Amino acid sequence: MANVKILTEADLRNAVQLDLDAVDCVEQAFLALATTDVIMPPILSMAIAPFNGEVDVKTAFVPGIDSFAIKISPGFFDNPKIGLSSTSGLMVVFAARTGTVEALLLDNGYLTDIRTAAAGAVAARHLSRDDASTACILGAGSQCKLQLKALCLVRSISRAAIWARDLDKARAAAVEMSNELGIAVSVATDLQASVQEADIVVTTTPASAPILPSAWLQPGQHVTAMGSDQVHKNEIEPACLVKADLYVPDRLSQTRSLGELHWAIAAGLVDPSAKFAELGEVVAGRAKGRICPEAITIADLTGTGVQDTAIATLARQRAIASGIGADFTN
Amino acid sequence: MANVKILTEADLRNAVQLDLDAVDCVEQAFLALATTDVIMPPILSMAIAPFNGEVDVKTAFVPGIDSFAIKISPGFFDNPKIGLSSTSGLMVVFAARTGTVEALLLDNGYLTDIRTAAAGAVAARHLSRDDASTACILGAGSQCKLQLKALCLVRSISRAAIWARDLDKARAAAVEMSNELGIAVSVATDLQASVQEADIVVTTTPASAPILPSAWLQPGQHVTAMGSDQVHKNEIEPACLVKADLYVPDRLSQTRSLGELHWAIAAGLVDPSAKFAELGEVVAGRAKGRICPEAITIADLTGTGVQDTAIATLARQRAIASGIGADFTN
Repeated sequence: MANVKILTEADLRNAVQLDLDAVDCVEQAFLALATTDVIMPPILSMAIAPFNGEVDVKTAFVPGIDSFAIKISPGFFDNPKIGLSSTSGLMVVFAARTGTVEALLLDNGYLTDIRTAAAGAVAARHLSRDDASTACILGAGSQCKLQLKALCLVRSISRAAIWARDLDKARAAAVEMSNELGIAVSVATDLQASVQEADIVVTTTPASAPILPSAWLQPGQHVTAMGSDQVHKNEIEPACLVKADLYVPDRLSQTRSLGELHWAIAAGLVDPSAKFAELGEVVAGRAKGRICPEAITIADLTGTGVQDTAIATLARQRAIASGIGADFTN
Repeated sequence: MANVKILTEADLRNAVQLDLDAVDCVEQAFLALATTDVIMPPILSMAIAPFNGEVDVKTAFVPGIDSFAIKISPGFFDNPKIGLSSTSGLMVVFAARTGTVEALLLDNGYLTDIRTAAAGAVAARHLSRDDASTACILGAGSQCKLQLKALCLVRSISRAAIWARDLDKARAAAVEMSNELGIAVSVATDLQASVQEADIVVTTTPASAPILPSAWLQPGQHVTAMGSDQVHKNEIEPACLVKADLYVPDRLSQTRSLGELHWAIAAGLVDPSAKFAELGEVVAGRAKGRICPEAITIADLTGTGVQDTAIATLARQRAIASGIGADFTN
C-alpha cells in the first residue's frame, strides 16, 4: 500500500507562487540540464483534429532530484465556446528510485504557467542588461501578466507597455498590472515605438506569423520569445536571429523543430546544424550570456520537462511541509 | 470546477475482471484501430538507467469512445529487492471533446494486465483452431495465469502445461490454475513435448533470447508471443515467422521495432517493408485469420494505446454505474 498525495489547483496556488523561489527552482533545473545527465525524451504529442484539440506529454529525470514528473497538457481550442478553459491538465509525480506514484497535482495548467514565467525571469537575469528598466509585452493573456511580473523579480522595471490585437484586452491587462506591480503600465497603441523604447521585449502570443520585425530591434535589447511551442507558431521575424548578437534556446533540439529557430532554418537564414549554447549552459557559466551593454540577445523558450519536474517537486515538498492536500492510500 | 473520479486498485479490481466483457471490449478496440481514424502516437519511453528503471506512456484517441486514456507504466526492476513490485503506474482518463480530466485510475498496472490478457483471447478467438483444447504457457508470472484464463474464455481448453526456468514457480502456478479453472494443468518438465502437444502456445516471459525454437512448431498450432514489448526482448526464434503460414501483429509499426518481427527483420528473414495485416483487420474481416486446420499462426502482441483507452473507459463507466470510487472537486 502506498500513499498518494492529491493536490487540487487551489492547494497548488496556495503552495507555489511566482516568486524568487520559483525562479531559482527553475534556474536550478536549467543548470542541471546543462551540467548533469538529465534524461529528457522527446515530447509525446497527440492532435485530436475532430475536436480541435491536442495533448502534450513532457517529462524529465533530473539527477539530484528524488522525484520526476510526467506532465499531461491538453489544449482544446473550442472549449471557450462552452465556457471552459482551452488548457487544463495535471502533473503526476513519481519516486525516481522506484517509479512509485507519489502525488497527483491537479493544477489545470497552473504550475506550467508558473514554471514558464519563471523561465522568462531566468532568461532576463542572464541575458538582459543589469539596468534594464522598461519592458514591452506582446500578448495580453495570462503569460503576459506573469512574464511581466517575472521580469520585475529580477530587474528594476519601472515602466511597461502591453500590446494585443484586442486593445481592450491590453487595456485591462495594463490596469491590472499597474495596480498589482505599482509601476506605470500602459497600452502599446504604437507597437513599434513601444518595442523600440523597451529594454526587454517579451512575446507571449499564439501568433502563426511574425509580429516582431527585425528592423525594430535596438542595440542593448533583450527579447524573450515564449509563445512558439508548436510547429505552426511563429512570433518574431526570422531575420531577428541574424540581427541578434546572441541567440539562446532553452533546448536546442526543441527549438530546431518547434521554436523561432525552426523558422530561421526554414528561411535559409540559419544552418540546420548550427550550434547554440542553451540557457542552462549560460546559467552554468559554460557559455557567455550578455557580453556588452549594446548586444541584442534573444531567448527562445519552448518549455522543457526539467522545468516540470522541478516545479512539481517543489510543489509536493511545500504541500508536505505545510500539511496541504489529501492523502490517498492505494 | 470539474469532478474527477479517483479509483484505487481495489476499486478497479471490483469494477473490471478478466471475462468475456473485457475480451469483447478489447476486441472492439482492435476493430476500431482497423476501421476508424484512430490516433495513436508513438510510445513515449524514458529509461532511467541509474535506478534500473523505465517509464512508458501510451495513449490513443478512438472515434466513438467519448474518453481517451493516457497510461503511465513505470517498470523498476530492482524494486523486488526492497519488497516492491517492479511495475506500477496509473491511467488518466480525459474527455475526448474537451480534454477535461475525468478520472484517475490508480491501478498499479492491474488494468494493463487485464487488457493484455484480453488481447491474447482476441488473438486465440480469431487465429487458433475452433477445436483447440490444449495449451502450453511459457513463463509463470501473472500473465501466465491470466493468458491461460483468457484462453479458457474463448476455447474449450481441457489441458494445459506451464513452463518456467524456475520449476517451483511453474508448479505453484499449475496448482493455482488447476484449482481456479477446474482443468488439468501440469508442469512442463519436457518443454519440447509440451509445446508439440499444445494447440495453443503462449509465451509470457521477459526473455532476451529465443526460448521457442521453430523446429518445435506443429501444423495446426497457434502461437501468441506477448512478452516482447521492449527492443531487447525476444521469445521466439526468428525462423518461426518464416515457418508460420500467418503472422499477425497487434500494430505493425510497433512490432517492426519492438516485437518478434524486429528480430526476424534483423536476422534478414523478413523484409523490413513487408506488410502484414494487423489483428484488428482480422477481427474486422478485412484480412484472413486461420484459413485451414493445418495452418501455423503467430500473433505478436506488443500492447497498444487503444486497449488502454478501451479498458479505462469501461472501468470508469462501471465505477460510475455502481457508485464505486471517490469524487474529487477541482
